[in-house]
Amino acid sequence: MCGIFAYLNYLTPKSRQEIIELLIRGLERLEYRGYDSAGIGIDSLTNGVKLVKQTGKVKCLRDKIEAQRQELGFDRELQVHCGIAHTRWATHGVPSDINSHPQRSNEDNEFLVVHNGIITNYKDVKQFLVRKGHKFESDTDTEVIAKLVKHLHTLHPSYSFRELVEQVIQQLEGAFALAFKSKHFPGELVVTRRGSPLLVGIKTKEKLASDHIPVLYSKDGCEFGGRPLGARDRGLPAKEDHRSHVYELPHGLARTESSAEFLPLGDDKQVEYFFASDASAIIEHTNRVIYLLDDDVASVDCEGILKIHRLKRSLEDSHAREITTLKMEIQQIMKGNFSSFMQKEIYEQPESVVNTMRGRINFDSETVVLGGIKEHLSEIRRCRRLLLIACGTSYHSTIATRQLLEELTELPVMVDLASDFLDRNTPIFRDDVCFFVSQSGETADTLMALRYCKQRGALIVGITNTVGSSICRESHCGVHINAGPEIGVASTKAYTSQMISLVMFALMISEDRISAQPRRSEIIQGLRKLPEQINEVLALDCKIQEISKEVFEKKSLLVLGRGYNYATCLEGALKIKEITYMHSEGILAGELKHGPLALVDKGMPIIMICTRDNVFVKCMNALQQVTAREGRPILICNKNDEEPQKYASSVLEVPKTVDCLQGLLTVIPLQLLSYHIAVLRGCNVDCPRNLAKSVTVE
Amino acid sequence: MCGIFAYLNYLTPKSRQEIIELLIRGLERLEYRGYDSAGIGIDSLTNGVKLVKQTGKVKCLRDKIEAQRQELGFDRELQVHCGIAHTRWATHGVPSDINSHPQRSNEDNEFLVVHNGIITNYKDVKQFLVRKGHKFESDTDTEVIAKLVKHLHTLHPSYSFRELVEQVIQQLEGAFALAFKSKHFPGELVVTRRGSPLLVGIKTKEKLASDHIPVLYSKDGCEFGGRPLGARDRGLPAKEDHRSHVYELPHGLARTESSAEFLPLGDDKQVEYFFASDASAIIEHTNRVIYLLDDDVASVDCEGILKIHRLKRSLEDSHAREITTLKMEIQQIMKGNFSSFMQKEIYEQPESVVNTMRGRINFDSETVVLGGIKEHLSEIRRCRRLLLIACGTSYHSTIATRQLLEELTELPVMVDLASDFLDRNTPIFRDDVCFFVSQSGETADTLMALRYCKQRGALIVGITNTVGSSICRESHCGVHINAGPEIGVASTKAYTSQMISLVMFALMISEDRISAQPRRSEIIQGLRKLPEQINEVLALDCKIQEISKEVFEKKSLLVLGRGYNYATCLEGALKIKEITYMHSEGILAGELKHGPLALVDKGMPIIMICTRDNVFVKCMNALQQVTAREGRPILICNKNDEEPQKYASSVLEVPKTVDCLQGLLTVIPLQLLSYHIAVLRGCNVDCPRNLAKSVTVE
Repeated sequence: MCGIFAYLNYLTPKSRQEIIELLIRGLERLEYRGYDSAGIGIDSLTNGVKLVKQTGKVKCLRDKIEAQRQELGFDRELQVHCGIAHTRWATHGVPSDINSHPQRSNEDNEFLVVHNGIITNYKDVKQFLVRKGHKFESDTDTEVIAKLVKHLHTLHPSYSFRELVEQVIQQLEGAFALAFKSKHFPGELVVTRRGSPLLVGIKTKEKLASDHIPVLYSKDGCEFGGRPLGARDRGLPAKEDHRSHVYELPHGLARTESSAEFLPLGDDKQVEYFFASDASAIIEHTNRVIYLLDDDVASVDCEGILKIHRLKRSLEDSHAREITTLKMEIQQIMKGNFSSFMQKEIYEQPESVVNTMRGRINFDSETVVLGGIKEHLSEIRRCRRLLLIACGTSYHSTIATRQLLEELTELPVMVDLASDFLDRNTPIFRDDVCFFVSQSGETADTLMALRYCKQRGALIVGITNTVGSSICRESHCGVHINAGPEIGVASTKAYTSQMISLVMFALMISEDRISAQPRRSEIIQGLRKLPEQINEVLALDCKIQEISKEVFEKKSLLVLGRGYNYATCLEGALKIKEITYMHSEGILAGELKHGPLALVDKGMPIIMICTRDNVFVKCMNALQQVTAREGRPILICNKNDEEPQKYASSVLEVPKTVDCLQGLLTVIPLQLLSYHIAVLRGCNVDCPRNLAKSVTVE
Repeated sequence: MCGIFAYLNYLTPKSRQEIIELLIRGLERLEYRGYDSAGIGIDSLTNGVKLVKQTGKVKCLRDKIEAQRQELGFDRELQVHCGIAHTRWATHGVPSDINSHPQRSNEDNEFLVVHNGIITNYKDVKQFLVRKGHKFESDTDTEVIAKLVKHLHTLHPSYSFRELVEQVIQQLEGAFALAFKSKHFPGELVVTRRGSPLLVGIKTKEKLASDHIPVLYSKDGCEFGGRPLGARDRGLPAKEDHRSHVYELPHGLARTESSAEFLPLGDDKQVEYFFASDASAIIEHTNRVIYLLDDDVASVDCEGILKIHRLKRSLEDSHAREITTLKMEIQQIMKGNFSSFMQKEIYEQPESVVNTMRGRINFDSETVVLGGIKEHLSEIRRCRRLLLIACGTSYHSTIATRQLLEELTELPVMVDLASDFLDRNTPIFRDDVCFFVSQSGETADTLMALRYCKQRGALIVGITNTVGSSICRESHCGVHINAGPEIGVASTKAYTSQMISLVMFALMISEDRISAQPRRSEIIQGLRKLPEQINEVLALDCKIQEISKEVFEKKSLLVLGRGYNYATCLEGALKIKEITYMHSEGILAGELKHGPLALVDKGMPIIMICTRDNVFVKCMNALQQVTAREGRPILICNKNDEEPQKYASSVLEVPKTVDCLQGLLTVIPLQLLSYHIAVLRGCNVDCPRNLAKSVTVE
């Protein structure tokens, strides 16, 4: 949820100002992942390491650095330099200068580390280090990492930087992506990951000679007997030296001669490396990247060579990491003329839904082909049940499509929140088909639920927006929703594209049923009209802005509906919660009389969704119950439908479409409403407090 | 949701004051079912019919009547009299004198009707009657019934009262229980039901000669061609007379001679009849009652004879209605020393949980026998999946036990809100086992879901607190939770007893699995200790009252937890919503980072449940995330567990029990908290605004 960025230039002269600017820009790109404080670590003017950290957004850090430009020596040019940077989203310890990253080994800044994720055994490690005399200054879990690497360096001064990090991560439990810098290894950098994503960008003047780099293996890197420090303290580290051997070379030998083996550079040794938790920070510099896998340790040594090490050889591993070419374009992650990414992404929906359907639906022959799933279709048709597992907005997309899946597959369909699914140790069977929906493809709970189901032999289907993400890689098949990068923390276009992906799946699986053809045809033609209908809904923006003025000062807001629109209620309420901090709740209209109706009076703002589908009459009943208690709801209904309008204080009319697609249109007014309320309340739309884009820890 | 009460005394002299007192007391007993207005209809002093109606609670009606004691002739004694009464819970039209019941046919009060339920085709009927020249005065759906009976009386002056009602109900769609009174048929009464419950109490001096009365059949009672007035108007009624024939007797013939055939009275003709939507209004007068079935028309004619008619003979019908003996005791429905029924029922839980387990669990041999389900056990063990379907609090009891059911049955377990389940037309298979949980056994959505599943061949298991309720009667087998009558609208003791019933089911179904024995044993011994542990929790009452003073003025409240305590969060938040009108929401702690965390700051009151189970560490993480955002939660944790307490503003310590039973103890502090907040906010604890005890309409 935090953001890591690191930059290393080798034989590529850069002024300090340029380097710092690169680091800060990297953080700005990552800010949507977490932003309560930020910091950088660079070489000082006196052969040491300099740390600048600041509570608040990256902008605050930029201002602080600007004020120190003399002291930092902005004009000094450097041939080789390594800098690390971090934007934080607090998990352990409140946001503060001292808790922000980089965390350091000691006052002398001998070792610095930036960290995404959570170290679950940090208390045990801390206890061990405190006994060894280390003094802690922060409340973070991360600080133990910096202290531990220093501790091991003192014990084993001959270890290389990479070897030290290998030792450290064996002691850690939890999820992490880490980048290290040290004054003892100037111009060198080591990064590693387990559970949290991390990638490396490579920029050279010449074309790279190869599109992969080999993985190097250490024989055994065990320091404390191979087990992490746990609840029982294992006392002193064992004395025996179990360092890497396989590729062991005497220090100082001409490693450059074998450079082609490690990194496919040409004769020109000039190179720049970018390390980030997210491609968006790298894409403006280079599109050649390597996605690291769990427990990879990547290092750039003092000759500027990138190597990827693993402690143990595994049969499953491919023994090489591909240098892939990112297709994301830089303008995709720019805001354009919109005041926020969220607003931009709401307005992108007429195109993003087309992108989701492109090449998959043939509107004339009324066929649907999802390439990724095609091969598994007969297996899916034979299954015992479908499970849809996700968190947050992605979970709502599964609720929105559950009914259609039940209808067209005639199978039992269960939807579950990933965290609850895991808590319950839900029984899973070999003939289950499990869907995992996540925009980032890295959502920790969803990913763990995926692994839980995979282990039990179920077929795993991933629905993500991020090629190469963990969920993508670990599923048997899947659908890429193709909505384009989503930067706003509050998900909008990903929701509609997730829904469409699941609808397409339902259409595809029912293609062979004659009785389902009229229904399929109706839905496919509904999808064809969708982009223009979304444009019609977006045209309500001014009216929605007016409505937002009436409600933005309220404390609470209820969103009511049922049937296909129940998911819209949940999702609309979540949007309002996320970016306006107003307590809003989506309530199933059928449950109104079982409790929530007590909340209804003149003063309680209510939004009600009542479109012409098979539950219209029941919704009208609920509407009348609300008005009988003097509630005056804001109504979302179909165009020119006068009957429900008599009961409303304001009306938002959306075009009518097929019942199971109606939620794609009714959710947009709520996305826009939450946006306008947030603006009126002075909230930061793209970076809501306490939240981050992609939740990569449990 | 409204309450119907009617009283007919035949040859039993009563003063008007006594009769009115009887009617009012009946309404007071029913008030927990709905109470925004009330009314009575009695004979006037001038051979007409007198109506008194009043917005507000029954107390307001009592005051209004008291002020008219002269005008009403309190002292006048009557040999034969029929009075009807109603307490309303608005569905169509705001609470007002004019919208309250009885509704009347015209200004002259020729026909009066009281109604529970909703007439779904009232608009069509109204249109028809308006064209016939009838003038409507209220916004209710009920008024069409009164007008329609008058309309038919004008067309067919020779019809008996009962025949008129038979004609009327053929035109009605929806759910209803109805009682009619007419100035044209003094001393006579007709009642009928479809979908809403209705029962008849009989009080005689002598013992009844038989314990059943036969059902009489009309051949064909079709007036408008047998189909109700629908969207398409069918114009004028057909002229042909299709009245009942089978038992047709000339008017005025000595029906008393055959009275034994209809009602097993002895020689003494003195009798009193009580008609009510609920046994609680009858039990203080008599314990001899008949539960009417859908489409029964019961009438008391001018000779004081009760007859039950049906239009059509059906093979399934038993051709007689049993006169059952109610076992409920009057003191069970009295409040005792508590300030409200809800408080009383919270405090009853140490006993009510014992009543639920009594005779079912043998704590020494560690066996569990649910008599109702025993026979179906092997069928259940072979099923494809378990479905648990309910509304409101009952739904939460299914969430609370889902994990244990999954664990001990090793079957997929789905939980669904009844209304959503119906909206979705969920696929159901012959090898499904469906549980329906409802305190009253009359919850409309749950009952309809039951019928939906039964039709599709699933095995139906009912879990209710009301013997003889519709769910009881229509299920294949079931568990009576034995919690005793629950009067407070906000359910408390029924929740804990429902949970225990489902736990007992899980224990029973796993009795044959050797590997499950340690777990079963642990749970059974946990249940044994439960009553004393509940007493320990109740001892926290003073502390909870103190905490309520800190939060009662807040606008919002979040309740966080996960695992087995997730249901507690939902249920606790619902209690607070229901009786304090504060916007509270139960949130799965695992979802916090996916949105709701944005709501957290210094000012937002938060309750967090964090007990020592397999999700304790994850809960602690959530707790720290909340405190990192300056939230200071009220904590519910296990006794003497210091670790989470450091993060809390106040702490409520509950005894530790088995994980799957912990929710029985953590929910009680929230029940008490909602009670105290409601008292501090000046809310009526037992009769929260807008809500009724048992939701018998969709």
